Amino acid sequence: MSLVGLVHELGSRLGDGAVLTERADLERYQTDGRRTSGRAAAVIRPRCAAEVADTLRSAAAHQVHVIAQGGGTGLVGAGLADSSRTSVILSVERLSESPVIDPLNRTAEAGAGLRLSALNEAAAEHGLYFPIDLGADPSVGGLIAANAGGARFLRHGDVRRNLLGLELVLSDGQGTIVRLGGPLWKNNSEIDLKQLVAGSSGGFGIVTRAFLALSPKPASQLCAMLSLADAGQAPELLVALEHAFGGLLSAFEGISGAALSAALGHFPRLRDPFRGAAVDYAVLVELSAGAAVDEAALEDMFSRSLIPWIERGVVRDAVLDRGRSLWAVRHAIPEALRAEGTVIACDVALRRGELMHFRADVAGRLKAVVPSLRLHDFGHIGDGGLHFNLVWPRTAGPFDPAIADRAREIVFAAAVEDYGGSFSAEHGIGPSNEAFYRRYVAEPVRRLSGHIQRQFAPIPIGRVDFLGNPR
Amino acid sequence: MSLVGLVHELGSRLGDGAVLTERADLERYQTDGRRTSGRAAAVIRPRCAAEVADTLRSAAAHQVHVIAQGGGTGLVGAGLADSSRTSVILSVERLSESPVIDPLNRTAEAGAGLRLSALNEAAAEHGLYFPIDLGADPSVGGLIAANAGGARFLRHGDVRRNLLGLELVLSDGQGTIVRLGGPLWKNNSEIDLKQLVAGSSGGFGIVTRAFLALSPKPASQLCAMLSLADAGQAPELLVALEHAFGGLLSAFEGISGAALSAALGHFPRLRDPFRGAAVDYAVLVELSAGAAVDEAALEDMFSRSLIPWIERGVVRDAVLDRGRSLWAVRHAIPEALRAEGTVIACDVALRRGELMHFRADVAGRLKAVVPSLRLHDFGHIGDGGLHFNLVWPRTAGPFDPAIADRAREIVFAAAVEDYGGSFSAEHGIGPSNEAFYRRYVAEPVRRLSGHIQRQFAPIPIGRVDFLGNPR
Repeated sequence: MSLVGLVHELGSRLGDGAVLTERADLERYQTDGRRTSGRAAAVIRPRCAAEVADTLRSAAAHQVHVIAQGGGTGLVGAGLADSSRTSVILSVERLSESPVIDPLNRTAEAGAGLRLSALNEAAAEHGLYFPIDLGADPSVGGLIAANAGGARFLRHGDVRRNLLGLELVLSDGQGTIVRLGGPLWKNNSEIDLKQLVAGSSGGFGIVTRAFLALSPKPASQLCAMLSLADAGQAPELLVALEHAFGGLLSAFEGISGAALSAALGHFPRLRDPFRGAAVDYAVLVELSAGAAVDEAALEDMFSRSLIPWIERGVVRDAVLDRGRSLWAVRHAIPEALRAEGTVIACDVALRRGELMHFRADVAGRLKAVVPSLRLHDFGHIGDGGLHFNLVWPRTAGPFDPAIADRAREIVFAAAVEDYGGSFSAEHGIGPSNEAFYRRYVAEPVRRLSGHIQRQFAPIPIGRVDFLGNPR
Repeated sequence: MSLVGLVHELGSRLGDGAVLTERADLERYQTDGRRTSGRAAAVIRPRCAAEVADTLRSAAAHQVHVIAQGGGTGLVGAGLADSSRTSVILSVERLSESPVIDPLNRTAEAGAGLRLSALNEAAAEHGLYFPIDLGADPSVGGLIAANAGGARFLRHGDVRRNLLGLELVLSDGQGTIVRLGGPLWKNNSEIDLKQLVAGSSGGFGIVTRAFLALSPKPASQLCAMLSLADAGQAPELLVALEHAFGGLLSAFEGISGAALSAALGHFPRLRDPFRGAAVDYAVLVELSAGAAVDEAALEDMFSRSLIPWIERGVVRDAVLDRGRSLWAVRHAIPEALRAEGTVIACDVALRRGELMHFRADVAGRLKAVVPSLRLHDFGHIGDGGLHFNLVWPRTAGPFDPAIADRAREIVFAAAVEDYGGSFSAEHGIGPSNEAFYRRYVAEPVRRLSGHIQRQFAPIPIGRVDFLGNPR
């Protein structure tokens, strides 16, 4: 292995600012969205696919391990180096030329380093957007690596569903560039290999460019926050709203009373939708329509559809809003929880009908083992995703990391073994959950995945070996 | 190879009716939806995944080649034997126990042999359906093998988008059964290998069971057929309707004047929407809504949105219909074309903005080479899919198959080389188009696909080798 050789070679070939090695320059590439940290020996910043290919060829020749990094917003450590200082980060941040929007095709062609916000800014000129709604501002490459979901999955799906094609540099020592898919909405003329890259945590090569499906920006929207008498009735309400509103229903989020209190308590400027009334469980419902349906019509339809639920006592209180103030409450939760104490985040997915049983059941199991932990869950009830987040409050004394390990063991074992759920709904696989990958993904599936990964990346790249071997 | 040994072994182990070898019994497994024919040595009809595994193990031991077959509605010959009588068909038709519908999760678990119509019948009891709208009634396994699209792709996508998981028997000589995905809507805890099986033409193993996403059946629908002054304005109209109706727009189909005339001429019971007026190009628009929006509201919204298009002269005439009579016209086209003569079907996909340029351009090229061929195209304009179907009329004299070859060369070369399109939008890959696969799919993509196929199926299965070698 020759790090010095690699740095020297690429530094002279890729030009000014392409290779960073100074401690101060490296700092911002060393943490991710969960404040996990790592230490790379260098950061390489190519500007085009050919330079990415050059980087991978050189790294292979010098036997230096490469880790792709996008916007640094990942939550499982997949884009960070470990602490050994033997890897280099390949940042795609300079692959961020202006996207090309094709309004008739309703697609965008974008570099992997482009931020979601910049993509949406360009798309907005045509009344379009990339309909993945997240709290963070990741790069296109990072969105693909994590196959991000978000709050409008119910209507628009995950990144995979909105990904039409990509350009990928294989980690084969040759820097082979392949295009998988393209700007077509429909294509069954080949095996859809790009699907393997979505959600592969940077382990299948380096994505340099993507062809993305855009959606028309809604012309009118209505939000409502509902306080439920019993969280257990949320799935039934969801199903009823799906039948009532079809393609107009764009989000159905769940918020525990504890998560709601934390958000309102931490951000005093937020308006409390329920004016101080105690809330057991709240749901945030969003309707989105084109220009043919105005907001008054949405409000009227929604109000009427709620009447039987209020009469039956399922919905205790309902607050309607045509703006973003209810979403502001929802999006304030993660930061509010961090302010309360140490957060143990568990990103699980379950069948929708099991979500509320799971919450009650696993809250009970945790209480028996670690009574000081507080459950502040929220999630994407519409798609079965649950941020089953636990907080060790500052008031409970010093936090022992073993508590997090024990809690995650309990939560993930229940999710996977007892409920047939997933231990990673939308954050992907990385160093922070690969032990669960090894434990819970069946051996023949890991074997297939690992061998397929080796077809794309005979030279290991990134932090995850999908065979399940530690890397 | 020992066909006799295999037939004897499976006949005794799988019981009555599981192994068919009589000529009369084999007949119905020897043609597909395009009346292509093949001749298998035997048909094996297992009843469960374990029997499928048993069949594949035995076939491997006896070195007999297996081809999976679903409902026999494929259009590229992927489920048929060749004429050599050396292969056996593994029909999944008996893997068709009643599906399990989970209404809160909005999913179905179904055997690979279940027909789409039977799935929808079970789902309808809960107000749900599997939103793939096709003229045929394929099996669940066939839907997955072809990754079928259909007329509501614009709103609901293809089979892939509605496929949450599957059970697959690998063609590895061991009969290994893997489960890829399951009933979860969201799961990023592993590489999404089921995506490789969707659209793999039965070349990755035998699908025995699937977990499918269902959608609420629309409570109200409105259809409209519009006669356009100029086909070239169809994409612009599409974009405008997408912005106006968002998730309410469920189909946007294009119908050439020639295809429309053929349908109306061949089926005199069909009502002519335009009462005899000449039509250059028609589009069929469908809006679908939940119970909160009634049909009168849809009709009102749609009528209002059309006014500027009528005023500008883009829309010459518009016929609205709350029933299925306009769809009946659309669905009558394929049979009407067969009645006109010999059909050369070209299932291409293009960027939406290029569709109409392509039509005009390639129609001209064909006219110059084979003047007697008539273009009767129709298609899924909303997703860029075009059934660029050509008819050799009975009146033009005997049909020489070389004409079909020449026409397909011209159409596919234009689609792929000049327009960056696809030579197979929604019918998949099979013997009837594998020469184009070899020609138009880039070598590194074929190499990856072929090597990945060998991970799932070290023992070749089905009709397509994705490396591109003839099979």
